[in-house]
Order: sequence, then structure tokens, then C-alpha cells
Amino acid sequence: MNPTTLLHLLAEVQRGTLTPEQASARLADLPFEDLGHAKIDHHRTLRSGLPEVIYAAGKTPAQTAEIFSRMAATGVDVLATRADEATAEAVLTAIPAAIHHPSARAITLRQSHAAPRGHVAVLCAGTSDLPIAEEAAITAELFGTHVTRHYDVGVAGLHRILAQRETINQANVVIVCAGMEGALPSVVGGLVGVPVIAVPTSVGYGASFNGAAALLGMLNSCSPNVTVVNIDNGFGAAYTATLIARMAHHP
Amino acid sequence: MNPTTLLHLLAEVQRGTLTPEQASARLADLPFEDLGHAKIDHHRTLRSGLPEVIYAAGKTPAQTAEIFSRMAATGVDVLATRADEATAEAVLTAIPAAIHHPSARAITLRQSHAAPRGHVAVLCAGTSDLPIAEEAAITAELFGTHVTRHYDVGVAGLHRILAQRETINQANVVIVCAGMEGALPSVVGGLVGVPVIAVPTSVGYGASFNGAAALLGMLNSCSPNVTVVNIDNGFGAAYTATLIARMAHHP
Amino acid sequence: MNPTTLLHLLAEVQRGTLTPEQASARLADLPFEDLGHAKIDHHRTLRSGLPEVIYAAGKTPAQTAEIFSRMAATGVDVLATRADEATAEAVLTAIPAAIHHPSARAITLRQSHAAPRGHVAVLCAGTSDLPIAEEAAITAELFGTHVTRHYDVGVAGLHRILAQRETINQANVVIVCAGMEGALPSVVGGLVGVPVIAVPTSVGYGASFNGAAALLGMLNSCSPNVTVVNIDNGFGAAYTATLIARMAHHP
Amino acid sequence: MNPTTLLHLLAEVQRGTLTPEQASARLADLPFEDLGHAKIDHHRTLRSGLPEVIYAAGKTPAQTAEIFSRMAATGVDVLATRADEATAEAVLTAIPAAIHHPSARAITLRQSHAAPRGHVAVLCAGTSDLPIAEEAAITAELFGTHVTRHYDVGVAGLHRILAQRETINQANVVIVCAGMEGALPSVVGGLVGVPVIAVPTSVGYGASFNGAAALLGMLNSCSPNVTVVNIDNGFGAAYTATLIARMAHHP
Amino acid sequence: MNPTTLLHLLAEVQRGTLTPEQASARLADLPFEDLGHAKIDHHRTLRSGLPEVIYAAGKTPAQTAEIFSRMAATGVDVLATRADEATAEAVLTAIPAAIHHPSARAITLRQSHAAPRGHVAVLCAGTSDLPIAEEAAITAELFGTHVTRHYDVGVAGLHRILAQRETINQANVVIVCAGMEGALPSVVGGLVGVPVIAVPTSVGYGASFNGAAALLGMLNSCSPNVTVVNIDNGFGAAYTATLIARMAHHP
Amino acid sequence: MNPTTLLHLLAEVQRGTLTPEQASARLADLPFEDLGHAKIDHHRTLRSGLPEVIYAAGKTPAQTAEIFSRMAATGVDVLATRADEATAEAVLTAIPAAIHHPSARAITLRQSHAAPRGHVAVLCAGTSDLPIAEEAAITAELFGTHVTRHYDVGVAGLHRILAQRETINQANVVIVCAGMEGALPSVVGGLVGVPVIAVPTSVGYGASFNGAAALLGMLNSCSPNVTVVNIDNGFGAAYTATLIARMAHHP
Amino acid sequence: MNPTTLLHLLAEVQRGTLTPEQASARLADLPFEDLGHAKIDHHRTLRSGLPEVIYAAGKTPAQTAEIFSRMAATGVDVLATRADEATAEAVLTAIPAAIHHPSARAITLRQSHAAPRGHVAVLCAGTSDLPIAEEAAITAELFGTHVTRHYDVGVAGLHRILAQRETINQANVVIVCAGMEGALPSVVGGLVGVPVIAVPTSVGYGASFNGAAALLGMLNSCSPNVTVVNIDNGFGAAYTATLIARMAHHP
Amino acid sequence: MNPTTLLHLLAEVQRGTLTPEQASARLADLPFEDLGHAKIDHHRTLRSGLPEVIYAAGKTPAQTAEIFSRMAATGVDVLATRADEATAEAVLTAIPAAIHHPSARAITLRQSHAAPRGHVAVLCAGTSDLPIAEEAAITAELFGTHVTRHYDVGVAGLHRILAQRETINQANVVIVCAGMEGALPSVVGGLVGVPVIAVPTSVGYGASFNGAAALLGMLNSCSPNVTVVNIDNGFGAAYTATLIARMAHHP
Repeated sequence: MNPTTLLHLLAEVQRGTLTPEQASARLADLPFEDLGHAKIDHHRTLRSGLPEVIYAAGKTPAQTAEIFSRMAATGVDVLATRADEATAEAVLTAIPAAIHHPSARAITLRQSHAAPRGHVAVLCAGTSDLPIAEEAAITAELFGTHVTRHYDVGVAGLHRILAQRETINQANVVIVCAGMEGALPSVVGGLVGVPVIAVPTSVGYGASFNGAAALLGMLNSCSPNVTVVNIDNGFGAAYTATLIARMAHHP
Repeated sequence: MNPTTLLHLLAEVQRGTLTPEQASARLADLPFEDLGHAKIDHHRTLRSGLPEVIYAAGKTPAQTAEIFSRMAATGVDVLATRADEATAEAVLTAIPAAIHHPSARAITLRQSHAAPRGHVAVLCAGTSDLPIAEEAAITAELFGTHVTRHYDVGVAGLHRILAQRETINQANVVIVCAGMEGALPSVVGGLVGVPVIAVPTSVGYGASFNGAAALLGMLNSCSPNVTVVNIDNGFGAAYTATLIARMAHHP
Repeated sequence: MNPTTLLHLLAEVQRGTLTPEQASARLADLPFEDLGHAKIDHHRTLRSGLPEVIYAAGKTPAQTAEIFSRMAATGVDVLATRADEATAEAVLTAIPAAIHHPSARAITLRQSHAAPRGHVAVLCAGTSDLPIAEEAAITAELFGTHVTRHYDVGVAGLHRILAQRETINQANVVIVCAGMEGALPSVVGGLVGVPVIAVPTSVGYGASFNGAAALLGMLNSCSPNVTVVNIDNGFGAAYTATLIARMAHHP
Repeated sequence: MNPTTLLHLLAEVQRGTLTPEQASARLADLPFEDLGHAKIDHHRTLRSGLPEVIYAAGKTPAQTAEIFSRMAATGVDVLATRADEATAEAVLTAIPAAIHHPSARAITLRQSHAAPRGHVAVLCAGTSDLPIAEEAAITAELFGTHVTRHYDVGVAGLHRILAQRETINQANVVIVCAGMEGALPSVVGGLVGVPVIAVPTSVGYGASFNGAAALLGMLNSCSPNVTVVNIDNGFGAAYTATLIARMAHHP
Repeated sequence: MNPTTLLHLLAEVQRGTLTPEQASARLADLPFEDLGHAKIDHHRTLRSGLPEVIYAAGKTPAQTAEIFSRMAATGVDVLATRADEATAEAVLTAIPAAIHHPSARAITLRQSHAAPRGHVAVLCAGTSDLPIAEEAAITAELFGTHVTRHYDVGVAGLHRILAQRETINQANVVIVCAGMEGALPSVVGGLVGVPVIAVPTSVGYGASFNGAAALLGMLNSCSPNVTVVNIDNGFGAAYTATLIARMAHHP
Repeated sequence: MNPTTLLHLLAEVQRGTLTPEQASARLADLPFEDLGHAKIDHHRTLRSGLPEVIYAAGKTPAQTAEIFSRMAATGVDVLATRADEATAEAVLTAIPAAIHHPSARAITLRQSHAAPRGHVAVLCAGTSDLPIAEEAAITAELFGTHVTRHYDVGVAGLHRILAQRETINQANVVIVCAGMEGALPSVVGGLVGVPVIAVPTSVGYGASFNGAAALLGMLNSCSPNVTVVNIDNGFGAAYTATLIARMAHHP
Repeated sequence: MNPTTLLHLLAEVQRGTLTPEQASARLADLPFEDLGHAKIDHHRTLRSGLPEVIYAAGKTPAQTAEIFSRMAATGVDVLATRADEATAEAVLTAIPAAIHHPSARAITLRQSHAAPRGHVAVLCAGTSDLPIAEEAAITAELFGTHVTRHYDVGVAGLHRILAQRETINQANVVIVCAGMEGALPSVVGGLVGVPVIAVPTSVGYGASFNGAAALLGMLNSCSPNVTVVNIDNGFGAAYTATLIARMAHHP
Repeated sequence: MNPTTLLHLLAEVQRGTLTPEQASARLADLPFEDLGHAKIDHHRTLRSGLPEVIYAAGKTPAQTAEIFSRMAATGVDVLATRADEATAEAVLTAIPAAIHHPSARAITLRQSHAAPRGHVAVLCAGTSDLPIAEEAAITAELFGTHVTRHYDVGVAGLHRILAQRETINQANVVIVCAGMEGALPSVVGGLVGVPVIAVPTSVGYGASFNGAAALLGMLNSCSPNVTVVNIDNGFGAAYTATLIARMAHHP
């Protein structure tokens, strides 16, 4: 219920076609979302053209496939993250047009045709961080941004990141995935003048404590343009990166 | 040394006004920054018109005052964070035009005259989070954005945040400071469609473990548009927020 | 041995039908529970009509089935928590009247016929928290309270919880299950005027540290009507909730 | 704005004394609290007769005294927690009728005259836990319950708690404050049939880690009627205890 | 109330000099300790001749002096641990016969004249661990054992501990205090055939985390004759060591 | 090389049958153990009659069986801890006289015939702690002490531990195994006058953090006669308990 | 591109055989490594004769075998660490000359013929630490140093380490692998006058927290010649040890 | 007692000027250090010409001054670390030739005249890490190495470290001090071919947890030539660095 529909309702009361009691009941019964008090993700998604997202971990292949199909039927783009092989098989059987990205553990279905807006650079420190980086890249692409990938550019071989500095500097926002000591976002943060979203990965052993070491390193970054998301949360990084990149390239 | 100056140097060699040995020495001697390999913060600051920043914690009042004065002399805006009373006194004695913001523990000197670009909303959960929120707000303002403040809007009284939803929704980016359980960024993330930068504060006692509880809560946010900075890092949040807000409002 | 039976015993000594030595021996031999010094759960259970409870984790299906049968034979209600499929099969083979609740991993046998007393609202933030929420709901129902379920009402979509506010407010006590950032209990605590029992769940990944993030968030709740139980302890929350709800509805 | 006032407003529209536009504006302008969407603590406090509460830590004596005076003027009961000597002096100078409880670090002003409802037993393990126990006791008393104190009843001398078992068993809810190993709530939980609210205290040294050991112990209690609040949170325990005790003794 | 006094009471009932009601009341009124259900520390102390102990931390000098005096008046030995200078002054003013041990932060009053029983060796790794070692040594001596001190025998200079091996081997139990890496108990455990009680100290910096590193090291000792007490708990180690040493030398 | 053999060597030098150079070489070559500087476990074991011990975790069944057989051949008692079913089968095939204790995950071979010396009471809080308690009990028995078992005597039902107080009090040392909140050792420590060795078990879930909660609780015990070993270390507790119990009953 | 090749390029410009534009492009295109700004591991490896290293964990047997073969073809020595049985089979099928070291989980291919330089002593505390010690030993040997092994020399039996002191003292650097309490490096550090590299292993249970206890112990070593690497990082320890040992024995 | 003195003693026995009994007693009485079983730091120091070191933290100014004077009298170099202003004053009053290094919190006395051997490069990330870096530099210089300082070369401005790469590469060993994210050692490790000793500093706030974040980052370094010492342990890093640098430059 937006101001317009509220006015209509009150006009009906004024006209006498609705008693105050009926109007009061209708106001009480309306879900909050209709009053604009809050918007459900589903509606926002449909309006904005952003893809629907399914977090497949903890769901059976059949469940994911069913949800995926239902969403696909609405004509929007669909993304399933953390999808294993069995899930991919189930989804692709149901929706042959969907694409499985094994390294990113993602399944995508593109039904929209908008040109990309904004540029997101996705970096990862080592090849082991690649699945998380790919989750971020695939997500950002499906969400409608131009993505450049810069993989295996860890800080122990600085020339690798320095060599790609120019391209990275053209991005509107940079996503940096790194495990172990998690140093790459600080280095990148010093090289670029745009926001850097750091994704700690659970890559490492021993005192990496499943990504906690990288997480702490990133939170303590000496580069003030670095913000951090949860360990292995490539999707979340791409979601925010898309919001930023679109801002830079509003039509 | 950019491509142009490199061509000039090579042309001199071609012309014979520079021997290969001289050119080689010149290439070797030039600091990397001049080759564009990296840019020192100082230079970037001067060029971009962003303020100079002094982290006053761990510096004597005299040291901070001297650095502040030196920076002020270059004509740029200057910001000192984590400045106590004694430091403020020392700085204002040296630079009477500077302004002390006690609640933010910040000192600012504005010498530029550009109109604000972009809109940053700064929220805090309780009045105890106010110093960090003010550090963020003061920083974002000096960095040249329009800032709206929404304080004491914690989740235990939802009406407070809901009542200000409209204004917050007009911002390009939202900074949310919260201690204790750190729940506010998730709630705000669900209400707005722009990036939310969460700042855990060290407010709380017992099992808050000096902000670690809030930090963990924010990293695990169920809203995908939330990224996080270090505990009490209002400055860093504002730095990144400025980068985002400017992106939305490039001239 | 309560005051009455003690008086009887002493009266026998007075009458001479019992020598002091015999009385002394009888006093020494009696189990403490009979003296009222402490009550074993079993006896309390029988007297109070509360169900017998079996924690099935770590027990073989045969062991659980045997205990379940023995308890069932006494005519009381019986609850088995953390029961897997094999355990459920074994129990239902032995006691066909028992009911298996797969999502709650619980098995119940209802033999009493008392009307429900008190109202417990059970909320969960996301569908992944559902097993713990169902453990709480099934427990509270078998313990004799009226239970309303409010699932998938996480803080990233406030309208969902706000829409059900009225029903929740009618409960005598609210159980809130949430993983990830664990913010829901604080929000609910601000909406209702009754005790809120928060159950952190191990739902999440990375920096959720198996529920520790949610646990810390709940302990630091800014709502003073929130108390907390162990991670995934839906049973314990329901046990205490039942005690509170019965208090409000003593016959 | 409750249903009644909403009906009045709609009736005015029906009568034509209010145009739909005016009614719409009035509905939009009203704070959410008036619509019943959420209730601010202040209003709830006034209506319910519960005391106003000031968390004095981090406030200057003058600030606390001013807030205290303002609240006192409304005629309600007032409680200030975590108040040091200087704060107490400032408050008592302003409001001579207020009472300072040094061991509880609390200041109370009683202006209501209702008889106590419900019975809260407050226990503490050692004399060092007394300040937190007293904070709980003073709070529960000012909130209008009957409080019995059972101090220095730690588990290393079981006879002490056993000797007071009868009285404790008459309470509607038991608050147990303990530091060090935090074992007392489990023992008490086994002795009583009512809810036990455990308050870990920061008492201890070395591996007590400022109360974390006691907190973990209480969360892992083998007694299912134990719920837990934050370390040293005597106030929160009393707040919830009051809600429970009142439930048992509604007039 | 022991079996004898119980028989007397029952005999009175038999004789008719006590009604059953009176006997019942007397049984109910008697503290549990008198029934032998539990013994209060105080009574056990008096009977066993073990000293009374006051933990002075958190008590005012006046409080400690008063308790000390009251205990001294009963003729037993008295020990105050964690006593600062002011407390020592207050106690010695009240009880001039008491002795202050500054390095151990202890005050002792010896009033008994029994010969020492058993032999406790107290070791410490470095001179910084000395206060805790002395607390243990002073305690064990006042509790009536023969104590030998072996200080500054850390593992980085093995010859030091090896040189004193013979003496240490004659002890009935060995207390080992160590901070930093906490390795000494394992080494000593391998050299002796008696129980080793390890006391982690808070000595160290950085990753010692206030004794947590030493504590973990000791808990993981590869010598199976090592048990551990809390960080800095020299008193507790000496208490248990005394129980063991006395066992070996019962009169 | 003990004093006697050293004198013999020096006498040879005196007699001229050994040159100083030869003697010097011999002194340098002798292993330290021969000088009595240190004793290898093996030798100490043989002399003392204590069983040989094999930690079977991480060894193949064949390896454990081979070591077990080799040890058995020397005529001593042998103990294998943490032995799974396959290991038990392999050992019993090789040494049919060995006994497998499945609940303790231990295999024992008794070849000595000495009467038990000393009394060790082994307690556990719940039935889930039984494997660790049995490891302790089996170990202490094979090591030659009299063991009494007191299982399922957790603090939530105090009458259970109180009922067995008399027997427990007759032990020379008490081993207490408990998971979850780990409160039982403190309670037992207050009931008995002998050393209590606390064994935290990894029993529990959620915030038990695999036994860390119980470990911290035990380290912070308010009973000064409690010392602690590593989580699940029933063997170590029994080893030290045997040393203590033997001390009390030296022949 | 070293100074010589740079001079050549500039001379070409001087001679006119290269235009400034061509030279500029060539300078821009050259990878940074050729300019000496940074060196890729691969090139450094080839020049230095150090082996190529493959971290096989997380790679399929086929992937590791392919990389191994490609490296082997260049004629250098090759090392694969963390290689399981399947990987070893795949590699040895491809490169029959490679050697599988099962206990070290390593595969080596030696193609160089240089004599060893420098002496590295590798110690481990217990037999369970052997896999990590062997990884270190195999690595150091393939990297061209002389390695002596000293295994099972833990601190609970000091004679074992003391007996081998002389040989260990001849090494240029000592690697010490230990789990549980991690005390061995401190003891060794006190016995030798050369750098000690400590490798905490994840050996242990309970409060060893997967090697964290050993790690903390080593970081707090009281021997100042001890530095530490990550838990289970035998490879890294050997890498640094090789650098040190070669330093002592440069040709 | 070295081999020579042992031979002398045995020769005396041969000559009959010493009986076997006397020789035996003398051998038994001699401290182990004299037999070469172990060497005390003091003796090793005197022989090696390495300075004596006093850890002044926890010592009174008078104590430190006295120890310093006693050591100085032996003619060796002396170093006091963690010395505050008062300690420096006390030492310099006693030994006017000593030098106070306030930023390093160190006092040195140089009495030897040997030329430096080996080259140690000391780096620090920010100016706040300078005290620890200076402690390392001062220590390494007094220990007799050539030291080059490279301060404020943190990773957020890569050009700074790249610009000094050549000089750093000439060192035999590099010490890198860094707080916050602790990323610098990894970057430096990739730039140089010598051992890197990483010193985490306690510089930072919030989630730096007093240096724990930097420590974890360094332990997880992706550069295999990085080893780590305790937080703020500049002295230990310099001690090991000296051992390595001397190895490269043995006379």
C-alpha cells in the first residue's frame, strides 16, 4: 500500500462506500510489505531485474531443482550457489538452458538481455582460492556487471599483481579473495583508488584456523579502502560489488 | 614517469642528447612511484583533493600539531583522528582555524570549497556508539559528502529505525555503527538497496569481548549488502563510503 | 521420607515398636530422595506428569528403543530427542503408537490427556534453523503447552516478523531460534513484553564458528528480557518455556 | 494510535471534517509507536509502572543526575545501575529521597506503592559475587517482586545450599550468580522445579578469563531449566525474573 | 550430629523425654553439617589442624585484618594470600606475631607446633615465576610439610635442573611453576617418579596470552604424572601437595 | 653408571689397568641413562612392576599387536589404550590371555600377582562420560590399586553423589570425569578430604567446544584439592592417582 | 631484463634500429620479472638449482602427475609434498625414476648431482611427529643439504636428547618437530648455539587444539634462538633451514 | 670441565695424588655445565664475546643497575631491554659510558672492538612498529652485525619497499616487524632469497587483538622463507638473525 492506494482507500471512506470499521480492518489486515514498511526480497528482485538466488547447501538436489524451476518460470535470471554435482544434474535435467560452473559450484540461468553496467575486477591470491573467486565472478556477471579475472596474483610474487595493475585500476570496485595470511587486499588497496571488498577464504592449514587468520588480517588492513565479508562469502562480495559498480554506471 | 615522459626520454637517446648509459641510470634511479608502479598516499592526496589524515593515537600532542601544521601549509583539508584534549589544544594553538570535535575525538581543517558529492547516512545503535559514528560522519563530511545522522536507532526499538527509513533510503551508502550484539546492520541491510558498511564498536561488557561479538555478528549478516570494517574503525568506513558515494555522483 | 513419614517412624520409636538402633539404621539406609533432600528426575517426572525424555544421540537404536519401551510401560508421555532414522524405526517397531517427527529428529508418545496450559510462540530466523525450532515446538507441545510456530522471520526482512507481531504478543513466553548473526531475539525482545528464550543454532559458515557468533550476539542482546541456552538446545529452551507458560496458566 | 484512535480518525474522514489527504498525512506523520507497530521503552515503562532504568557506566555524574531527576519528576520509580560513588553523590544531592546501594552499585527511587507480586530467590556462590547478586536483588525489588537472598552457597560446601533448599523452592524463579567454575546453577537447577536464570560473574583469575569459564559452564548446564544472561548482567536477570514472577502472581 | 548423637536423640524419644514432634523439629533444624551430610570448611579446619585461609584480593585491609584476627583467636594457624602492602600493615598491626612474606604476597601466623610431615619440592622456571612459587612454598610450609625450593631451573639451561635432580627425587610430590612455554613440568615429570603439580604462571608477553600458553602446554604434557591447576594458583597446588605428602607420612 | 661403577672405573685408573684417556673416553661414551642422569621409561617400568603402556591411536592393529606381544614376552603387565575393535581382535589373536574392555577402549594383560595397594574412587557425571571413566578405572586396576566405581552421579541430581559419599570418602584419591559444565569435581572436592583429579571429557555439544567448557570449569574450581588433566585423559588421571594411592599404602 | 640487456635496447635506439615508440612498447610489454622488479619462483628455481615444489593437497593425482612431469622435463629436481597414495601411483607411473616416501607423504625426483652443502639436524619429540619430521628431512636432502635424523627424543626422557647432543651440535641449523606441549625446541635451543626452527605438529588430543598448544609454547620459548613456522609445516622449516645451512657452507 | 680438565683430574688419580673416592666426589659435585653436559648462558656469553642481556621488565631500576654494573665489570658488552626512563637513569648514573636508546627502550654498553660480521636488514611496516624494530636493530648491532634500517615500508604503499629492494637484497637475513595485518613479511619473503624473521607487533586496535592478527598472518605466510617469533620480540629476532649473519661471514 503506497500513498496512492492509501488515498484511494480514504476516499472510499469519504464517499461512504467503505465504513471506518471496514477501512480499519483493511489497514490492519494488509501485509506490511504492501504498506511499504518493508519489501520482501522476492518483490525487490522482480522489480530490479536482479537474479533470484538459491543457497543450495543443505537442500536436496530435488528441492533445489524445484525452486530453481519455479523461479525460472517467472522469466528472471536465476543463480544457485554452493551446488554440488548431484544438484547440478537435477537442475540441468529440469532446466536444460541452465549452465553449471563446477569450479564456482554455481548454476546460472540467464534470461535477461541487458548490457553489462559497471566493471568489477575479481582477484585471487592462489589457485586454491579460485572456487570462491569464481563464485564471486559468476555472481557479478549474472548480476549484470563486466568482470575481469586476475587469478594467482599472491603477494609472494609481487610482479604478478603489478603486471596487471593497469587493468585492475579501471574497475569500479575490486573483489580480492585470499586465504593463508590474507595480505593481498592490503596490497591491492594501496594500488587502486576504488573500494576493495576482501573475501577471506578457508584455504590454508594449521594456524590458518579455517580462514580466521585471513579474516583477521583483512580486518586489520592498513589500506582504508578495504571492507570485509565472511569467510568464503564470494556471493556476498559480488552482491555488494554489483551495487557499487552499478552506481558508477547508472544509465 | 608515464608513457609520455618515457617517450621523451627515449627520444633524447635517439637524438643523442642522452647516452644509453645516462638513460639507463635515469630509469634505474627514478622512484617507482614516478613510473606509476605505485602512488604514494601523499601525492594521491594532493592530486585528489582528499584531506590529509593523521592517526593521532600514539603521537605526542607536539608531534601531531607539527604534522598538522605542515600539512595545513600545503592548502589541503586536514583530519586528525583519535585526538585527545591535549592534542586538540596543541593543534588549535598552532592552527586556530582548525575545529575540534570532542565527541568524535577528531580535529578538522577545511580549506577546500567544493560542494558535497554523494550522500552518506551514518547510523548508530545506541548513544554509546556515538563517538565512532561521529568519527565516521566528520570524516565523510570533510571528505566532501553530504552526511545525514540517524543515532540511537537500535533494534530493541524497531520503530525508531523504521521511522527514518525514507531518509536513509535516499543515501548512496549507509554506515552502521553498533556494539553489543551488532544486529543493526542486518536490519538496515534488509531495509535499503544500497551498500551497508558495518562498524562494530567496542561498546558492551562481559561476553561482548570488546567488540568481538558485534564483529562476528556483522560478518555473519544474513543481508548480502553488508561489508564490515575493523572494530571502532569509523574512519575506514567513511573512507570507503566516500569512494562509493562519489562514484554515484561524479560530476 | 517426608515430615509425615518421619513422624510415623518416630512415633514407632515412642511406642517401642521400633528400637532407637532400628530407627537409626532405617534413617541411614533410606535413599536421600526419600528424605526429600533431592528428587530424582524419574520420580519427579512421574508425579508431575511431565514426559520422560531420552537423549538418543550416542545411544544405539536398540538401546533407545528399550528405554523408550520401558518408560512407555509406566503410562507417561515419552520424548526422544536427537533420534536418527534408524532409531525412529527401532522405536516405532517396539511402540507403534509413537510418532516420528523427522525434521525435529524427535519421537513422541502421548499417553496423557490433559488440555494444554499456557502459550509458547516458537520463532526461527531461517528455514535452516527449522530442525531446532521444531525440536523446541514438539517438546513444548508434548509437555502440555499450546504452541504457535512463526518460521522464516529473520531480520533481513522485518515485515515478516512485524506481520506476525500480534499473535506472538499473545504468547506467555517466546522461543527464538537463529543462527548466523543471531539478531532475531533482540528484535523480538523489543516487540514483546514477555520473556524471550534465545536458542543460537549452528547454522552458518566461516566466521559463524558453528554457532558461536550467534551465541555471543544473543548474550549481548540489548533487550533485557532475553536469556540464552546452549547452541542448538531447542529441548532446553522448551523445557524452561513450559515451566514459565504453566506458571501463567496454573489451573 | 490504537484501534480506537484509528477508528476516530477514519470517522472524521467519513464525517468530512478531515479530508483523505489530511488523514493520509496524519497517518504518515504519526510515529510508528502510536500505531502500535512498536512501543518505545519509555511509554511502556510509564504504562506498566515498571521503573525507569539508567545505565550509569560511561555517563558523567552530572548527566546521570540530570536524567534521574527528569525521570523522577514523572512520578515513576527510578533505577540507576553501575553507579559509582561520585554518581551517587550527584544523584542524592539532586533527589534526596533516592537511596544508594553501594554494594550493588545501584541507586533507587521508589515512588510507587504497589504490593510485591511474585517471589524471586537470588543466590550467589561466593562473597565476591555479591555485587552482581545485589544488583539483581535490588532491581527485582524495585520492579515489585518479593526477593529472598541466599548468599555464599557455593558448591564446594553443599550443606549450605541444601540447608536453604526449602525456602528457595518456594520462589517462582531463581537467579543464581556465580563466577569461577559457574557450577552453582546446575546444582540449583536440579534442586528446584522452577526456571533458573544463571548470571556468570567476572569473579576469578587466570583461566576464568573474566567470566568466560563460568559462562561456558552455565551454557552447558545439565539441568534443562537453566537459561543464561551475559557476564555480570544482574540487571537483565532480574528484569526477566520479574516478568516470570509476575506471571505467576497476576492479580 | 554423628551416629552417636542421633542414637541419643532417638533414645530420648524412646524414653519419652522428647516427643516425636520435638525430635522431628530438631532433626529438621540441625544444619546439614551436623548430620554428616556435609562438613563446613571451618569445622574441618579446626579438627584437622590445617590453617585457616583468607583470599585477601578484593577485600579491604581492614576486612582482612578483622577476619585474620578472629581466626587467630581460635588458636589455629592462619594464612592470607594475595595480600598487598597495605593489607600486611593492617594485619601486622592487629596481630604482631604474624609474618609478612612480600615476595609471596602472603601473611602467615603459626600457632601450632607439630613437626613437618612429608616433603614437597617447589620448582620455578625463572625468577619472574618466584612470587607464585613462594606462595606455594609458604603455603605448604604453614600446612605442615617440609619444603625444598629449586628456583630458576628453566629448560633453556638443562644443567640447572639436572644438578638438583637428586634432592628433587626425594620429595613426595613436586610443584612446578612456569610461565612462557610452560615446558618445565614435562621435563621434571620425566625425571621423578612422584606426582607433579604444574602451576602455569602469567609470566610472559605477546602470545603467552597471560599464561594461557603455559596452561595449554602443561595440560598436554607428555609425562603422565603431571596434573595442572589454574594460572597463578600457587595456593591450590600447595593445598593438594600437602594432602599427598601427608598421605606418604601418616604418623 | 652409578657411584659404585664409577668408583670401579676410577680404581682401574688408580691401578693403572686403564689409562686416563681410556677412562675419559668411557665416561664420554656411556649413555646418560647408565649414569643415572635419567631413566628410560622401559627400565623404570621393569623395575617398578608398573605395566607397559601402548597408546594405540594412530597405530595399525598389526603394529599394536606386535608391540603388545613383545612387551608381554617380558612377563610384565601390559595396557593398550584407545584401541578400536580391529586392534583388539589383532591383539587377542596374538595374546589370547589379554582382555578387551570395549567401553574403555582398552586391552589389558595381567601377568603379575601382587595384591592391590591403595584405593582409587572413579566417578563420572553421566553415562556418556563412562568410556573415559572406564579407561581410568581399568588403568588404575591394572596398575595395582583397588578401584570403586561411582557412575552417573552428576550434579543435577545431588542425592546420587550424596548417597555414595561414605564409600567415596574411604578412597585415597578420587578421579572425577565430567563433560558439559564440568561441575562435579568442585562438588566432590568439597565432600572429601583427599586429592581430586578432574578429567574433563569431550561430552557435550554447542558451547561445550569439545570439552573446553568442562576444562575451564575444572581449572577454576573453588575446591582447592582439585587438579586437572587434559580432556579425555583418563589414563593420565589414573597414572597419577596410582602414584598417590600407593604412597598412602606403602608396604 | 638486467642492466646489460637494458643497455642493449637503449643502444639500439641510439643506433636508430629501434624507434622510441618500439622501445617504449618493448619496455611496457616485458614482464616485471625481466626487469628485476620481482622474480618468479620458477625462474629463481631454474637459476639456483633448487627443486621445483608441488603442494599436492587439493590437486587430483592426474593434475599433480602432469605438473610433476612438466617440471621433470626441465631437468631440475622435483618435490611433491602432501601426496597421498593415489597421487604417488600416478606420479611414479609417469616418472618411474621418482621416489615415493610414504611416511613423509612426499615424492622426490633427483636429477642434479651436486654434493650436499651444510648440515641440518632434524629432531622430533615422538613417533607421531615423524611424518612432519620426514617431510622436513626429505625436503632438506633434496634441496642439497646433509641431514641427520634424531627421532623420538621428547622431553619426558631427557637422556635421549642428551645422548645425541654432540651430533646435533655439529649441525648448522636444527629443525625440531613436536606436538602436545611443544617443549622440545626450548630444551634444544638451550643445548645448541645455532638457529633452531620449531615446527609445531597437530599431534595430540583434547586441549592440544590441533597443534595450537604446541604453537603457543614454541612462540613463548625462553631460548632466544628459536623461530617458529606454521603447524605441520615441515616443508617451510626445511626451506629456511636450507638457506641458512648453505650460508654456512658457500663454496 | 672440558675434556682437558677431565684428563687432568684422571691423571691425578693415575698419579695417586687423588684417590678414586676424591675424584668421584669431585665429579659428582661439579656442576653439569663444567662437564659440558650443558653450558650456562653466562659462560657461553663470556667465551663467545656475545653481550650479556638483561630483561629489565619486572625489575626495579636499582636491580637492573646493579646487574648491569656487575656484568660491565667483566669487560663484556651489555644490553638491557624493555628499560623505562627511570631504569635508564639509574643505569647511566652507575655506568656513564652506557647509552640509552629511548625509542628502542634499550641500554647498551659497548666494550668490545670487533668489526661487524654479517649484514642484517631491519624493516618495519609503520612508524608505530619502530620501537620493536629499533630493539632488533640495536640488539643486532651490539651483537656485532652490520645493520641497515628500512622503516615505514608497509604494504599499502608498495613503491616504498620496492624502492629499497636492492639494499635489502644484500642482507644475509631480514627482520620484518609489522602489526595490524602483518602482511609485510610475505611480500619481503617473495622479494629476497635469504631467511626472513617476522616479528608481529602489538600495534593496532580492535580485531588486531594485541598482535594476534599479525602473528597468525605471519605464521600463514605463503613465502616459505619466513619464520616467526613472539609478538613484540625484537630481541629474539635479532639474536637468531645474528647467528645466521655470522654464519655467512665466519672469519
